[in-house]
Amino acid sequence: MDGFILTLSCPDRVGIVHAVTGFLAEHDCNILDSQQFGDRDTGRFFMRVHLESNNRPLDLDDLRAAFARVGESFSMDWHIDGEAARARIIIMVSQQGHCLNDLLYRWRIGSLPADIAGIISNHRDFESLANSYEIPYYYVPITPQSRDDAEQRLLDIVAENHVELVILARYMQILSARVCEQLPGRIINIHHSFLPSFKGAKPYHQAHDRGVKLIGATAHYVTANLDEGPIIEQEVARVDHGDDAPNLTSIGRDVECLALARAVRWHLEHRVLVDGHKTIVFR
Amino acid sequence: MDGFILTLSCPDRVGIVHAVTGFLAEHDCNILDSQQFGDRDTGRFFMRVHLESNNRPLDLDDLRAAFARVGESFSMDWHIDGEAARARIIIMVSQQGHCLNDLLYRWRIGSLPADIAGIISNHRDFESLANSYEIPYYYVPITPQSRDDAEQRLLDIVAENHVELVILARYMQILSARVCEQLPGRIINIHHSFLPSFKGAKPYHQAHDRGVKLIGATAHYVTANLDEGPIIEQEVARVDHGDDAPNLTSIGRDVECLALARAVRWHLEHRVLVDGHKTIVFR
Amino acid sequence: MDGFILTLSCPDRVGIVHAVTGFLAEHDCNILDSQQFGDRDTGRFFMRVHLESNNRPLDLDDLRAAFARVGESFSMDWHIDGEAARARIIIMVSQQGHCLNDLLYRWRIGSLPADIAGIISNHRDFESLANSYEIPYYYVPITPQSRDDAEQRLLDIVAENHVELVILARYMQILSARVCEQLPGRIINIHHSFLPSFKGAKPYHQAHDRGVKLIGATAHYVTANLDEGPIIEQEVARVDHGDDAPNLTSIGRDVECLALARAVRWHLEHRVLVDGHKTIVFR
Amino acid sequence: MDGFILTLSCPDRVGIVHAVTGFLAEHDCNILDSQQFGDRDTGRFFMRVHLESNNRPLDLDDLRAAFARVGESFSMDWHIDGEAARARIIIMVSQQGHCLNDLLYRWRIGSLPADIAGIISNHRDFESLANSYEIPYYYVPITPQSRDDAEQRLLDIVAENHVELVILARYMQILSARVCEQLPGRIINIHHSFLPSFKGAKPYHQAHDRGVKLIGATAHYVTANLDEGPIIEQEVARVDHGDDAPNLTSIGRDVECLALARAVRWHLEHRVLVDGHKTIVFR
Repeated sequence: MDGFILTLSCPDRVGIVHAVTGFLAEHDCNILDSQQFGDRDTGRFFMRVHLESNNRPLDLDDLRAAFARVGESFSMDWHIDGEAARARIIIMVSQQGHCLNDLLYRWRIGSLPADIAGIISNHRDFESLANSYEIPYYYVPITPQSRDDAEQRLLDIVAENHVELVILARYMQILSARVCEQLPGRIINIHHSFLPSFKGAKPYHQAHDRGVKLIGATAHYVTANLDEGPIIEQEVARVDHGDDAPNLTSIGRDVECLALARAVRWHLEHRVLVDGHKTIVFR
Repeated sequence: MDGFILTLSCPDRVGIVHAVTGFLAEHDCNILDSQQFGDRDTGRFFMRVHLESNNRPLDLDDLRAAFARVGESFSMDWHIDGEAARARIIIMVSQQGHCLNDLLYRWRIGSLPADIAGIISNHRDFESLANSYEIPYYYVPITPQSRDDAEQRLLDIVAENHVELVILARYMQILSARVCEQLPGRIINIHHSFLPSFKGAKPYHQAHDRGVKLIGATAHYVTANLDEGPIIEQEVARVDHGDDAPNLTSIGRDVECLALARAVRWHLEHRVLVDGHKTIVFR
Repeated sequence: MDGFILTLSCPDRVGIVHAVTGFLAEHDCNILDSQQFGDRDTGRFFMRVHLESNNRPLDLDDLRAAFARVGESFSMDWHIDGEAARARIIIMVSQQGHCLNDLLYRWRIGSLPADIAGIISNHRDFESLANSYEIPYYYVPITPQSRDDAEQRLLDIVAENHVELVILARYMQILSARVCEQLPGRIINIHHSFLPSFKGAKPYHQAHDRGVKLIGATAHYVTANLDEGPIIEQEVARVDHGDDAPNLTSIGRDVECLALARAVRWHLEHRVLVDGHKTIVFR
Repeated sequence: MDGFILTLSCPDRVGIVHAVTGFLAEHDCNILDSQQFGDRDTGRFFMRVHLESNNRPLDLDDLRAAFARVGESFSMDWHIDGEAARARIIIMVSQQGHCLNDLLYRWRIGSLPADIAGIISNHRDFESLANSYEIPYYYVPITPQSRDDAEQRLLDIVAENHVELVILARYMQILSARVCEQLPGRIINIHHSFLPSFKGAKPYHQAHDRGVKLIGATAHYVTANLDEGPIIEQEVARVDHGDDAPNLTSIGRDVECLALARAVRWHLEHRVLVDGHKTIVFR
C-alpha cells in the first residue's frame, strides 16, 4: 500500500483532530505518525499526518477530492502528497561549493527525496561537478546591468521545469523582492551566522571581531526582508580566541552543510509549516 | 478549566486514535497536545494526550470511569491524571550531593511538579540541606548485616508516604532485586557514564583509562539487572587528554544534573512510557 | 611544593617564551602547564604558566620581585599568584536565584576557588539561602532616587572586603558607567541570550518572537557599554516551535548556570586574559 | 619565511621547555604557537611547537641535524616537518562512500593538507567518483582465499607510493595483525559507534536495540586489537525512540564524517601524539 502525507493549518477550534481521524477511518486509512501544534499567539492549528491505506490502493486525486469537504469546513490550508512523490528542485551556488557538494551526495544515496532539475550559478566553478552527477548546469552571470534579465532567467527555469523548491547553497547574490514574492516559502537560504546575530556581509569576520565563543549557521525561507525570513534550522560549533576569520570560515562550512541539509530534507518531507514569520517543524 | 494527561499503550491496530479522539469529542474535551508512536519491533502503540474540558468542569473519577470501556476494547494499559496533580517522590543520596541540590532548587522554583516526601541517605552529609528546605531526612545507614533491614525501611517509607517515584541521585548502594521488582518503572537512577560504556564502579576512571574524548551520564529506570534498565535520557560533555579522573568527575557533575533533572521532569509530566527494555519519551 | 600561576601580556616579539622559561629554570621551577597566544590583529602576546618549585619552597613576594626585571624588559602586564590563593568575591542577584544557587553549591564542594565575601541584592528573596551557607547578605534596595547611594554602598562593600571579583548572577539593575569603570575586568555578568543577538530586556521573549531554534547565554565582563563587554563563555540549548517564552526561560536557566559557572571558574583560575574588547581563554 | 612543526615526547623532567626554546632562540626562530602536556600517569612529556625563522630562510635538514643533540640529551622521540609539506595518503572504502566524498571535497578546497596517492576498495562503487577527482583507484577484491594477497597488495601500494597515512573511510574488512603492526600510528579508522559502546558489527542496530538517546562515532588509530586503538576524536548526535536502525545509520553518517575529518586533519597537522593506548591532541 502507498503512503501519503497530509499537512494542514487552520484557525484552532474543537473537533479538528476528530474530523481528520474520522475522515481517515472512513477511508480505511491507518495513521503511521501524526503531530499537531496549536499556536496560542496566532490562534492557528497545525497538523501533519503520515497515513497509509489499510487494504486497497488509494488514488491521490480521489483522496484530495474527498478531503476537500473537511478542509473547507475548517477553512484549512491543506495539502496531500504521495510519500514517494519527489519534488523538483534547483540548487543555486556561487563560488563556495561545500553545501552543493554535500547536497549532491545526499541526493545520490537517496537521502534527499527530490529530483534535481538543475544547478544555477553566476560562476563556472562547479560545472564539472554538475556534469559528474549528470545534472544540467545553468551559467547565469550577473552584472549590475544584467541583474533583471538574470532573475527572469531564474524564474523561467523554475517555471519550465516545474520546480517546487529553490535552494540557495551559498549563492552570494541578493534576490530582488520580485523573485522572493513570486516564490513564497519556496526558497531556502543558508546564512552563515547564528541569526539574528551578524546579518549581512562577512558574518565570520563580524563574529571574529566580536569575539564570540560559538559560531552558527541558519537555514531560513527567503523573504523580501534580507536575513529576516522564517528560520527552519540552526546549528552551532565551538570556537576560541585562536580561531581567526579563515578558521571560522572553515569550521563554519560543516555547520552550514548540516543546517541546510536538515532544513531541505524536512521541507521535502513536508515537515515544515510556515506560521507567520516563524516555522513549525514536525521532526 | 482543568487539564488532564492521558497516556496509553496497547497492541497496534486501526482505529485507536479515532476511538480516543471520538471519546474526547463526546466528552467535549479539547486536545491541547498529542503525540503517538507505533513500535514496529514490538507491535505496540503508544499515545499521550494533553486535554482540557471545553466548557464544564470535569471530574477525574468520572472521566476514568467513562474511558474504561475504550481502554478495555483495545486492551490498553492507560492512565489519566490531573495536570495539576503532584506525585509524591523520595530522593536518595549518598555523599555526592550535586544532583540532590539541583533537584531541590528546581523543586523550590516550581519546575519539578512533585511533592518531596523525604530524602533518604546512608550518610548524614545532607541533613542540614534537607532541613533548610524543611524536608524530612531519613538517615538509614547500611552495613552488610543491615542491608535487608535498610531496604525494608525504604519500602516502608515508600508505602507509608504513598510515594510514586524514587530518585537515586548518586545513591551509591545497589538495590536488591526484591526492591527493584516491587517498584517497576518507579525508580530512576543517574549513572555517571554514557551507557552501555563503563558500567559498574568508577566510570570516570574507566573513561580516563580508555582515553575517550567525550564523557556522559545516563538517567534510566532501575531494574534487577544493574545498569541495564530502560534509558530515559543521556547527555555528554567534551573532555581532552589534559583532564584527569578528578576533572572528569567535576565536568561530569554538570552532565549528571542535566540528564537526571530532565528524566525526572519528563517522568513527572507523564512523558515517559516504558516499551520493553526501552523508553518512549514524548517531549 | 606550592604551585604558582604566572599570566602575562605584552607586545609580541622574539624571545619572550625563552626569557620566561629561562627565568623559571634559573629559579629551579618546573612548568606543569603552559599556554600562549599571539594576536596578529593587535600584535599582543599572551601567556599563562602553571609552575611549581622543584626543590625548595618559594616565597611569592621574592618570586614577584625577581620577575619584575623580566616583566619590565618586555613591557609586560604580568601577575603571579599562588595556586592555592583564593580571591574574595561578591555575588549580586535580584529575584532569579538559579545561578546563585548553582554557584553556592560549587563553592561549597570546593570547585570554585574563592572566598565569598557576601551576597548583595535589591530584594530579600535569598536571605535565608545566604544564611544557610553562613554568608553575609547585604540588602540594598534600589529606587530611582537611591541609585547613586546604592552604587556607593556596593563600592564600599567591595573596598572594605578587598573584593577582587563581582559576579552579576541575574542582577537585573544596570550598573552606571562610574561603577563599570572603577572595576574594569572585575565584574562578570550573565546575559540570558546568545550575544550579540537579543541585547537588552526580555531576551527570551525576543527569541520566541524571532522563532530561533537554539537559545543561548553569554558570560561577559561588564563595561560601560551595556551587553558589549568582552565575552568569556557562551552556551546554547535546542528549542522548538512548541516552546513558549516561559519554556525558553526554563530551558535557559540551565544554560545560564553552565556559562556563568565556567566563566567564573576560569577567571578565578587566571585563565581569562582581556585582549581589547575580546578575551583569551586558556582552558 | 617558512614555518615548521616540531613535535616531541620524552620522559618528563625539568628543563625540557627551556632547552627547546633556547635552541629556537639560538637559531633565531620565533614561536608562533606552542602546546605541552605532562602525563602524570605515564611520566611522559609531550610538546608541539609551530615555529618560523625570524630573518633568514631555514633548511629543514640543517634544522633536524642541529636539533638531534637536544633530542638525544632528553631521549626524545621527535619530528620536525615543514609546515607546507604534504603527507601522502591512501583512502580505503567499501560500499558506504559518505566519508570518502567528504574527505575528497575537503581535500579539493585545500582544507586537508595531503596528497592523495590513491583510493583502495574491495568494490567498484566509487571508481567514477575517484576518476572525477583524477585520483588512482585500486580495485582490490577480497575473498577468504585472497585476503593475504590483498593485504600484500595494500602494503605494496603503501610502500611504492611512500604513503604515510592510510584512512579507513568505512572500509568494512578487518585488517590482519600483520598489517596493523607494520603501520603503527599510521592507520586511522572511523568506527560508527561511541566506543567503547557497541564494538564489532552493526553498531547502529546494537544502539537501536539498547535504546540509547545519543549515537556516536569514533575515529581511532588501528591496532591489532579490533576497536581498541587510541581514540583521536568522537562525536555524537541526539536520537529518539522514533529513529529505527536505518534512521540511526542516516544520522550517523554526518557524525562519522565530522569525527573522521577532524581526526585526519589533526593528524596531518601533527597535532596528534600517541601516548600508550591514548592520544594527546594539541588542538
